[in-house]
Amino acid sequence: MQQGKPIKLNGKPVKLPLICTPLVGRTKAQILAEVALIVGKQPDLLEWRVDFFEGIGNSSAVIDVAASIKQAAGGIPILFTRRSIKEGGQEIPLNEDAVVALYAEVCKSRTVDIVDFEMGNDPQHIRQVRAASKANDTQLILSFHHFQQTPPLESLNQKFLLAQELGADIAKVAVMPQSLDDVLTLLTATSQSSQKLDIPLVSMSMGGPGSLTRLFGWTFGSAMVFAIGGSSSAPGQVPIEDLNTVMGIVQKAIAGK
Amino acid sequence: MQQGKPIKLNGKPVKLPLICTPLVGRTKAQILAEVALIVGKQPDLLEWRVDFFEGIGNSSAVIDVAASIKQAAGGIPILFTRRSIKEGGQEIPLNEDAVVALYAEVCKSRTVDIVDFEMGNDPQHIRQVRAASKANDTQLILSFHHFQQTPPLESLNQKFLLAQELGADIAKVAVMPQSLDDVLTLLTATSQSSQKLDIPLVSMSMGGPGSLTRLFGWTFGSAMVFAIGGSSSAPGQVPIEDLNTVMGIVQKAIAGK
Repeated sequence: MQQGKPIKLNGKPVKLPLICTPLVGRTKAQILAEVALIVGKQPDLLEWRVDFFEGIGNSSAVIDVAASIKQAAGGIPILFTRRSIKEGGQEIPLNEDAVVALYAEVCKSRTVDIVDFEMGNDPQHIRQVRAASKANDTQLILSFHHFQQTPPLESLNQKFLLAQELGADIAKVAVMPQSLDDVLTLLTATSQSSQKLDIPLVSMSMGGPGSLTRLFGWTFGSAMVFAIGGSSSAPGQVPIEDLNTVMGIVQKAIAGK
Repeated sequence: MQQGKPIKLNGKPVKLPLICTPLVGRTKAQILAEVALIVGKQPDLLEWRVDFFEGIGNSSAVIDVAASIKQAAGGIPILFTRRSIKEGGQEIPLNEDAVVALYAEVCKSRTVDIVDFEMGNDPQHIRQVRAASKANDTQLILSFHHFQQTPPLESLNQKFLLAQELGADIAKVAVMPQSLDDVLTLLTATSQSSQKLDIPLVSMSMGGPGSLTRLFGWTFGSAMVFAIGGSSSAPGQVPIEDLNTVMGIVQKAIAGK
C-alpha cells in the first residue's frame, strides 16, 4: 500500500525511501572527515551543502572538494545543494548569477549526481540550471522551504506540481509546523501529490514535532529522508541509526509480520 | 506539543500513552500463563478479552479468573472487555442481558479497573453498565469498531463525542483503513477530537497500514496503544518491544534531542 515513486540513481529506480545525510563542514578537511564518518553508516545519498563551504567563492575549489567527496564516498551518489539564506541556508559571497554559473560548472565536472535549486528562484536561473544539469545527466530537485509556517493543503500541492511543471526530476517541499495539525496537512499533501505527480517527491515537516514526518512520512509517499550522519543541516533531523531502526519496525508492521 | 488527555488510574493521570496488552486465553491456565509471560514486559494495562474465555457463561468462574489475573498482575491495572461478534469478538453463549449482568457482577467484585462496552449496544444496557461501573469506582470505555472500512472524518468525530455524551470516562474508535488516506483521516479525527473532548480518547486504524497509528497515533492524541505481549487480539497490533523502541525514538525526536 506504500505510495509514491522511487528516485532513480544511475538510471535505475532505487529503494523507497532513500536516506540522505548532509555534509556541512566549512573546510575541505572538515567535509572529508564528515564523509569518512558517514560512509560507514551506509546512507543512500550524501548531500553536500556547499553554502557551508568557506571556499564557495572559488569554483575550482568547489569542484576539487566535490571530486574528493565522490572519491571518498565509495559509490554513494552525491546531491549538491546551495541553500539560499531566505530558505534556511548560509550567507555566501556570490550573487545569484554566480551561483547559477557554479551549478553549471559543477554539473559539467560530473562530480555530483543530483543538484537542488529552489523553485522560488528567478525563472531564467531555473531554466539555466535545468539546462546545465540535463546536458550532464545530472538530476534536478526543485525545492520549496518555509521555516516559519506550513502553507494550506492546496498551496503545498501546488508547490509539488510547480516543481514538475518547471521540469524537475524530483519535487521537494520542507515546511515548519506550528501544530500537529500542520504535520497532518503536510502528510496529506504528500499522500495526494505522490499519487498525482509523474515525478518522485520529497517532503518533510521540520522541528521537533515535524520529526514525525522524517520517521514515517515516507510511508505516505516521500521518496527521500534526510537523517543525521555527522551533523544536522535542518531542524528535526533524526540520527540515521534511529531512522533505520524505526523504518525496520514500520516496514515489518505494515507487512503484517 | 503532544495532544490529548491522559487516562487516570487509581485517580491519577498516568503517562500518555498507556501501553495495553491483551489476554486472549481460552482457559484459566492459558490466561494465567499469558499474564506470567506479559508481566515481565511491563505494560501499563492488561486487557482481559473475556469473550475468548471458555467459562464466560459462569459468572463465578469469570470473577475467579479476574481475581487471579489481578493477583498475578502485580499491580498492573486490568481492563475487562467482552467484544461483541459484530465488532470483532468471539461467539459466546450469553445473550446481551446476561452480558450486562456479568459486567455488573465483575464491577461489583472490584477485580478490574476499567470495563469496555460498545457504544452501539442497546442504550438501556449502556446505562446499566455505566451505573454498575460508576457504583464500583470502575472506569468505562465506550467503544466503536468497524472491521471493513473507515467512516468519514465527521462520523469519526461524532463517535468520539457520542461516547462522551453517553457518559464514558474514555472514548475508543478502531476502524479498518482501505488506503493510507484513511489512516490520515483517523489521525486527523484523533487530533481534532482530542482537542475538543473533555475525556481521554483511544484510537487506531487496524491491519498492516493501520499499524502506523499504533506506532505514532499517540502523538496525535490517542491515550492508549494496544500492543502484543503474548498474542494479538486485533489485526495490526505490534509487539510491545517494537512499540517501546519506536516510542523512545519518537519522544527523543519530538523533544529535539
